[in-house]
Amino acid sequence: MKKIINDPNAVVQEMAEGLAAAYPDDLEQLPGTTVIKRRTAPESNKVGIVSGGGSGHEPAHAGYVGKGMLDAAVAGEVFTSPTPDQIFEAIKAVDGGAGVFMVVKNYTGDVLNFDMAAELAEAENIKVAKVVVNDDVAVDDVASRRGIAGTILVHKMAGAKAEQGGSLEEVKAAADKAAENVRSVGMALTPCTVPAAGTPSFTLAENEMEIGIGIHGEPGIERKEIAPADDIAQELTDKLLADYDFSGSDTAVIVNGLGSTPEMELYIMNNKVQAILANNEINVYKTLVGEYMTSLEMTGCSLTLLQLDDELKQLLDEPANTLAFNG
Amino acid sequence: MKKIINDPNAVVQEMAEGLAAAYPDDLEQLPGTTVIKRRTAPESNKVGIVSGGGSGHEPAHAGYVGKGMLDAAVAGEVFTSPTPDQIFEAIKAVDGGAGVFMVVKNYTGDVLNFDMAAELAEAENIKVAKVVVNDDVAVDDVASRRGIAGTILVHKMAGAKAEQGGSLEEVKAAADKAAENVRSVGMALTPCTVPAAGTPSFTLAENEMEIGIGIHGEPGIERKEIAPADDIAQELTDKLLADYDFSGSDTAVIVNGLGSTPEMELYIMNNKVQAILANNEINVYKTLVGEYMTSLEMTGCSLTLLQLDDELKQLLDEPANTLAFNG
Repeated sequence: MKKIINDPNAVVQEMAEGLAAAYPDDLEQLPGTTVIKRRTAPESNKVGIVSGGGSGHEPAHAGYVGKGMLDAAVAGEVFTSPTPDQIFEAIKAVDGGAGVFMVVKNYTGDVLNFDMAAELAEAENIKVAKVVVNDDVAVDDVASRRGIAGTILVHKMAGAKAEQGGSLEEVKAAADKAAENVRSVGMALTPCTVPAAGTPSFTLAENEMEIGIGIHGEPGIERKEIAPADDIAQELTDKLLADYDFSGSDTAVIVNGLGSTPEMELYIMNNKVQAILANNEINVYKTLVGEYMTSLEMTGCSLTLLQLDDELKQLLDEPANTLAFNG
Repeated sequence: MKKIINDPNAVVQEMAEGLAAAYPDDLEQLPGTTVIKRRTAPESNKVGIVSGGGSGHEPAHAGYVGKGMLDAAVAGEVFTSPTPDQIFEAIKAVDGGAGVFMVVKNYTGDVLNFDMAAELAEAENIKVAKVVVNDDVAVDDVASRRGIAGTILVHKMAGAKAEQGGSLEEVKAAADKAAENVRSVGMALTPCTVPAAGTPSFTLAENEMEIGIGIHGEPGIERKEIAPADDIAQELTDKLLADYDFSGSDTAVIVNGLGSTPEMELYIMNNKVQAILANNEINVYKTLVGEYMTSLEMTGCSLTLLQLDDELKQLLDEPANTLAFNG
């Protein structure tokens, strides 16, 4: 394991400290936690937006704390759900009286712990609502689908609606709409190593790739020989279009790197993705290419498509100012 | 070689197309070139800012094209200087009558080719000036020092000065000041593979790291056993402080990832860097943590320090809106 770390068991705490130390004007770490909070939160009568999950997916989620997106992000241990008490601290810290909305990725631990935190908050008369994001079409059973890079667009919609003064119910409606209409699928060339484990979580042969892999290395749909970028783009796009009818839609697109993939390769992917979408008469309203939801140093990428209506376009255009999402 | 590409010899062209396709409202590719230009350029009476160099360092340099930074970026083949004719096309495309300023990294080919392009431009009555950035303290001979991540801060200063309406001479003075007062040094844990070569450009044993390595894998100062992040932070900071007297300064800091280093590890580095600087009574005015100047999928990082005076602080605070630098 070649990593720039100190104690493998202290990586999340040191990361949170290093992040808060980098951007002290905008962000702060809640004392005794790994919660990163927007310094201006809570804002009176604005719905507070909280997300989080296991660490190792940076810039998710602390990179999305800021104007127009999240008010706080809760970081669990690497690939491990944050505890209910840490989530509860985040909720309390961002409630400005209008309630708190939680964006949760669909993993058993995350859903359970965010729900427990919500119960703790409701016992203190904080209104809480949530959306569970399950955009990964690699899993057939919809109820078991994982939340991956599409989650970022749900952050964006919920955050923009809250910034515009939307009520907790209105924020939930916008986030639900985004979550229902977003689909993603990933692929990997190489695995990653959790620092405390010390060895890769799976192996792929030198000529192999895996289609449909999860952001923690969960098994995918198929392991096969590495194909050219254009073929990979075609296969990922086909899987999304087979799962959801995007034809005639305005869409947002994310070509997301999983950690070690050079930006060059993501742009090569995007080149083909845009051509395929045009051939399918799918209009691209906005494209994002880069690392939005990673898996430590995994090599690979994911593709996300979100169907936009007028409301979602307007929320996407609302200014956001965070470390990893601007514009 | 595990890469998401098509033809190894077409990666730069396909990257440029994929980038232009992702952000058509803001960026355009000059036809028949790998030049990425700000769509609003040329702007009448604004000095045009051009940078570039070999590809493989993304987001450098096209990721810095936009308001407050570059007007165009020229991409050579991977780790290879762009040709004079491509640079000349960029210069012509962004000249709005106030001249064009070039930010060049100190590599023989880059300096030669940018100079030849400037001669072509001057023959067409375009005023051209340049700065050569040589921030890498790993090389003892100052004249041979390489340009690495500190270049981004020179883009920022030149771009801000031009945006404020500075003349070509004023832009050059600001860029020169930044280049004179910026120092960087890098380290690597693993090499990278140029697509057309197919094999890594150097090797490091499983327990080895290299201090002072260049962004193309040029040899560093020392190859040694991997150390904890805190020790690496101390060693890199010591090298910068030994080369330049930052004591009592206001500074800008970049903790830069070389391509495959998880953001988590960069924040762990930053945590220690900030503590060391505080101990040395060096005031941090602004910190950037992330991938700013990479080497394909190399694992490692670099540290950059820039001494700021009032003018540079004000230029750093000038709004910028590019893919890889905002704020």
